[in-house]
Amino acid sequence: MAWRARLLVEYDGTDYAGWQRQPNLATVQGDIEAALAVVFKRAVRVVGAGRTDAGVHALGQVAHADLPASAADYPALCDSLNALTPAAIAIRGVTSVPPGFDARRSARRRIYRYRLTPRRIACERQYVWQVKWPVSLAKLRRCARALPGDRFFTSFCVAKSAAKGTRCCVHRARWLSVEGEYRFEVEADRFVHGMVRSLVGTMVEVAAGKMPMTEFEQLLVTQRRQAAGPTAPAHGLCLLRVDYADS
Amino acid sequence: MAWRARLLVEYDGTDYAGWQRQPNLATVQGDIEAALAVVFKRAVRVVGAGRTDAGVHALGQVAHADLPASAADYPALCDSLNALTPAAIAIRGVTSVPPGFDARRSARRRIYRYRLTPRRIACERQYVWQVKWPVSLAKLRRCARALPGDRFFTSFCVAKSAAKGTRCCVHRARWLSVEGEYRFEVEADRFVHGMVRSLVGTMVEVAAGKMPMTEFEQLLVTQRRQAAGPTAPAHGLCLLRVDYADS
Repeated sequence: MAWRARLLVEYDGTDYAGWQRQPNLATVQGDIEAALAVVFKRAVRVVGAGRTDAGVHALGQVAHADLPASAADYPALCDSLNALTPAAIAIRGVTSVPPGFDARRSARRRIYRYRLTPRRIACERQYVWQVKWPVSLAKLRRCARALPGDRFFTSFCVAKSAAKGTRCCVHRARWLSVEGEYRFEVEADRFVHGMVRSLVGTMVEVAAGKMPMTEFEQLLVTQRRQAAGPTAPAHGLCLLRVDYADS
Repeated sequence: MAWRARLLVEYDGTDYAGWQRQPNLATVQGDIEAALAVVFKRAVRVVGAGRTDAGVHALGQVAHADLPASAADYPALCDSLNALTPAAIAIRGVTSVPPGFDARRSARRRIYRYRLTPRRIACERQYVWQVKWPVSLAKLRRCARALPGDRFFTSFCVAKSAAKGTRCCVHRARWLSVEGEYRFEVEADRFVHGMVRSLVGTMVEVAAGKMPMTEFEQLLVTQRRQAAGPTAPAHGLCLLRVDYADS
């Protein structure tokens, strides 16, 4: 007998080759599955809501797994998983869900955050992109205001993944200013591969005066991947939260 | 000719054996002096306001140095030092000060912060002590309220350093609750060696129900080092700021 469980997972992506299991590489999915295999003495597969890239962090990744354990065992299971996974992974909770719950397919919204700073920093530099030239917060905000809506993000998509469709509905996009740091928060029903980092890289081009605002607006319409700016580094990105119909 | 300059320094203490230069060990003072030696092609000594221990971080350490460069050169010097020091050090500014300014002796107040969390975390764990048992924020706050005043902190001092005097005037001490994390901020004219970590370790004993509040209050009066609780780990501590008469 197996019950479907939902895992809320935080991780520091610095030393990981991403979420998704890959042979001979350290991955978050791989480490969680290895811990579950120790607990249950059999192979257990976990499915995550978002397959974050190498170096990307998560404060609120969600995954599901079918486990030979019921809700009463979850608090102890959570402790065991935290004892068995490396320090870069924190299982923040294990909860009971109906068998039809699918961490990826049932997700209604995903919220990502990107942190950058225009100044030199030392602490928390594993989580913040240090941009080496001045950027205008006002221009970053003008770019963000152009994002919400249902549109094709082909221009901001890694080429090979465009086949799966590039249409996304962005519900909210904003830049916050927090203690000298700029934080981009974006909420959408789905994201195409590389989208947040490509958007951030391109917005920074605009904010640094290297690309006119009108060109950024054109990219949102013309769907030409090559025209977008460079991709922002992975370590500034974090999967903040995944929302479901019941949450 | 040499002019006295003031350096504002941020560092991630994780991989450092502390601020103070030591033979064959990576230290912040050592790395900054090495960078200055490259720039000026001669040995330059820097004096820091606080000699932070191994593993302790700083967002606002202050140091002085006598440099063969005047104020007009400081912006370029700051860039050079940032290029020459490791990523764990950020020189946030170089400013001109009178020859009598002494980073240590002229300091009027030092502000430290200690971060701890009662839950398992993955991101930013290099900067936060993960306490493995429940702690009461209300009790932490009761302890903090007992601290301000001019008193002897002998009970919270590393034994060998007590000879230099243990009297400190604590101007403010408080615990903040920030996104599931508890942050202790304490401001005093001076700190005895190991004082903040010993205070935090002991307050956590009280907040975990392992030591009665009355015993904590006694420690502030009786001056017996052995009676205090364990020392909290270095990585939760950060030198936030140093204040001078002119700032």
